[in-house]
Amino acid sequence: MSGKKQITKRSENYSDWYLDIVHVADLADYSDVRGCMVIRPYGYAIWEKFQEILNKKIKETGHKNAYFPLFIPKSYLSKEAEHIEGFAKECAVVTHHRLKATENGVEVDPDAKLPEELIVRPTSETIIYASFAKWINSWRDLPLLINQWANVVRWEMRTRPFLRTTEFLWQEGHTAHMTSEEAEEEAKKMINVYADFCRDYLASPVITGQKSESEKFAGAMHTYTIEGLMQDGKALQSGTSHHLGQNFAKGFDVKFSNKEGQLEYVWQTSWGVSTRLMGQLIMTHSDDNGLVLPPNIAPIKVVILPIWKDEESKNKVMDFANELFDNLGDLIGDIELDKRDYLSFGEKSFEWEKKGVPIRVEIGPRDLENNSVVLVRRDKLEKVTVNINEVKVEIPKLLVEIQRNLLEKATEFVKNNSHVIDDYDQFKRQLDKEIPGFIYSFWCGSKDCEEKIKVETKATTRCIPFDQKEESGNCILCGEKSNKRIIFAKAY
Amino acid sequence: MSGKKQITKRSENYSDWYLDIVHVADLADYSDVRGCMVIRPYGYAIWEKFQEILNKKIKETGHKNAYFPLFIPKSYLSKEAEHIEGFAKECAVVTHHRLKATENGVEVDPDAKLPEELIVRPTSETIIYASFAKWINSWRDLPLLINQWANVVRWEMRTRPFLRTTEFLWQEGHTAHMTSEEAEEEAKKMINVYADFCRDYLASPVITGQKSESEKFAGAMHTYTIEGLMQDGKALQSGTSHHLGQNFAKGFDVKFSNKEGQLEYVWQTSWGVSTRLMGQLIMTHSDDNGLVLPPNIAPIKVVILPIWKDEESKNKVMDFANELFDNLGDLIGDIELDKRDYLSFGEKSFEWEKKGVPIRVEIGPRDLENNSVVLVRRDKLEKVTVNINEVKVEIPKLLVEIQRNLLEKATEFVKNNSHVIDDYDQFKRQLDKEIPGFIYSFWCGSKDCEEKIKVETKATTRCIPFDQKEESGNCILCGEKSNKRIIFAKAY
Repeated sequence: MSGKKQITKRSENYSDWYLDIVHVADLADYSDVRGCMVIRPYGYAIWEKFQEILNKKIKETGHKNAYFPLFIPKSYLSKEAEHIEGFAKECAVVTHHRLKATENGVEVDPDAKLPEELIVRPTSETIIYASFAKWINSWRDLPLLINQWANVVRWEMRTRPFLRTTEFLWQEGHTAHMTSEEAEEEAKKMINVYADFCRDYLASPVITGQKSESEKFAGAMHTYTIEGLMQDGKALQSGTSHHLGQNFAKGFDVKFSNKEGQLEYVWQTSWGVSTRLMGQLIMTHSDDNGLVLPPNIAPIKVVILPIWKDEESKNKVMDFANELFDNLGDLIGDIELDKRDYLSFGEKSFEWEKKGVPIRVEIGPRDLENNSVVLVRRDKLEKVTVNINEVKVEIPKLLVEIQRNLLEKATEFVKNNSHVIDDYDQFKRQLDKEIPGFIYSFWCGSKDCEEKIKVETKATTRCIPFDQKEESGNCILCGEKSNKRIIFAKAY
Repeated sequence: MSGKKQITKRSENYSDWYLDIVHVADLADYSDVRGCMVIRPYGYAIWEKFQEILNKKIKETGHKNAYFPLFIPKSYLSKEAEHIEGFAKECAVVTHHRLKATENGVEVDPDAKLPEELIVRPTSETIIYASFAKWINSWRDLPLLINQWANVVRWEMRTRPFLRTTEFLWQEGHTAHMTSEEAEEEAKKMINVYADFCRDYLASPVITGQKSESEKFAGAMHTYTIEGLMQDGKALQSGTSHHLGQNFAKGFDVKFSNKEGQLEYVWQTSWGVSTRLMGQLIMTHSDDNGLVLPPNIAPIKVVILPIWKDEESKNKVMDFANELFDNLGDLIGDIELDKRDYLSFGEKSFEWEKKGVPIRVEIGPRDLENNSVVLVRRDKLEKVTVNINEVKVEIPKLLVEIQRNLLEKATEFVKNNSHVIDDYDQFKRQLDKEIPGFIYSFWCGSKDCEEKIKVETKATTRCIPFDQKEESGNCILCGEKSNKRIIFAKAY
């Protein structure tokens, strides 16, 4: 990625465009470790915003943070049958605990082989529920509502920054309940927390719904998901919430004595969102000029760009810029004053545009003479001239307007690219289009139809949306009766 | 640790006492993974306080957070000669990337051997400076001030919760500068940030100073440290800051073009504190009744314990308790109202005492009749009766007083157990005492003397304190001239 600063046009090569945005906005770098990325300070500042907001929501819904080991004993993975099928195939395995120096550097010390290999956690159900078994005795210990912020590792063959990386950062919630109904309520509550977060902060409308049997989490009873539609018309699953039933409780012997004093297995949920959300954010709003950030998630909401020609004009402009910086900083926080004098105004302006800062405030000597400043809004690349007495009022208003506009635009995009289709030929034609989008079709529920459609069209089932009207029809492939539409899409 | 709820007395067995505190205060559990602990919600809530405060201080001093890969290619470790000596011996090594299912569960797939083994980071100098080499071109890119919050792994033979665990959580700062002087200033600034944090939040006075050559960080030019004195008279190193010189810059080719356009290697620092600070917090203040938390770091500063006999008195007491909870919550935050009715008042009171909550507010029907409530301060285990009209004023005042008292008591302890000794027999006698403490003695600076003293007394050099008067004397062992005292102590 080094050196290259041009951005490929979306229309030319969407995939290259995405990588260019990640690069030019200083979000992430590749590392020398296969599939692992370095999250750069600007990218990490955005992730910290995600964390701050989600952490607050997770605590407000009654959960407490804790921390569990990075390593999972190999034998743990065998305790839930489906789980190991889903996760054993792509793990980093620690086999030794020592290196030794040799003439040519270092090598693994064969004498330091571990008696039982350790797996770097791909997800933490197993290690966390081993603790739950110790912590839970009585119904009074329930519900147990735990969350962990952590790094996890899945050995991926094809990786892309944020969207799919070998190591990624996430939060994983893990809860235990007395009844299936409570677990169900929890699983739904948390998928809605994610959906609200996407809408209110990322300005990214997502569809919430239930995964098919073959797309659900390995070990879950059922899985809820949020699905976003990216600008190339492909779906992105960016958060899931699982009702685990008693599958893990039985594997890890997580029991409680109920009010009658009898032992029962707990009912569990787990749910998570990851740095993949960064990919969703990038692909929902960004354009051929770079990243576009909604104000509610931007680590820098406003950047002030002073312009000057000589020392005298510099002093005047800087006085005004400093004062605005102080006043506005108190009001909205997350504001930057770019004082760098070794870059031209154009270079600086271009840099902040690529980084997606919602508003640039341009202040030059002529503006001050006219008692005005120029606001450039990133979402529409439009300039607005504002009286200097109104700037402190206008900027917060414009931030709200940008947030609103981005959500509206993204919502419009999803609407325009959602298709209700009941004919398989039309279904296939839609999937061949440049922007395939979401396709709402009836499906009989069989794995066979799902698999055949996938092979023939590369479209997978994304979810049975919660929000659908009552109707019935025929499976898009086999024609069997069905009373639910499911969303098909090409997906990340 | 399960089940046991009694606390061993410090005087009986200090080490067992420590483990008991960790257990009864619900701070951490052992896991099935050798040397790895589970940080329980209450323990993690304290760690989150550490993070929140330190993160703010790290940002205020100009650093930005980022995130680098968990895995380090084996070859990276060979690039700085001393570094590999120090860290290669105790690493978790990832050799394979897949498991396969067998009849007996799962085993490592021999076909999935990595071409180059990956080390789970024991510290991140190498992987971070590989990025620095890409990010730094010109003197304008300097100083580069980066921090990372992460988990790290060191394969330890003997572990103890928080004090020494195979996996632990920490922050690691990494900076690059144009000159040695700037790097020196940075290294000192950050050790002082740590010392201030310990004093102002943990109420734990630490000595700041410089490590000897043999005790410095593997790869550093020199290392600064904070050293605390625990209640058993042993020293705990709980934070370090390293001036790395150009050692790593040369290994990873981190160069910048200076103002004259010539290429130079950068000067670097790194610095970190970890969950070990939790051990320091525990061992500085806790007593035979459990954990004692300074208000400035307590996740729960005040707990309200309502007492009632019948429904009528319950209503009155709960009305008052709820109102106090709301008012006080707005004022000081971090407050808890214990409404549990299935535990006796004694059980609840005992639980909060063990968890070290600074103030318990006891409210019963008789108290309300007398227009008073009882405040129990955890540091002195004293009860204070306060008029109900004054409680909102008295509680914040008492929190300040508890914080002050804990710092004073800890400072007094360090003072009383710091000994200036110039005679080796007296030196040895002091180290044989029950509370050996800090010993300030002249030392010639030779590794030989340091090593001999260690073998003979088990005391190691802790640091050459920054704060010492100008004087000269003779090495405590060999008698050679010296003009600096160094602190010797038995250490964790």
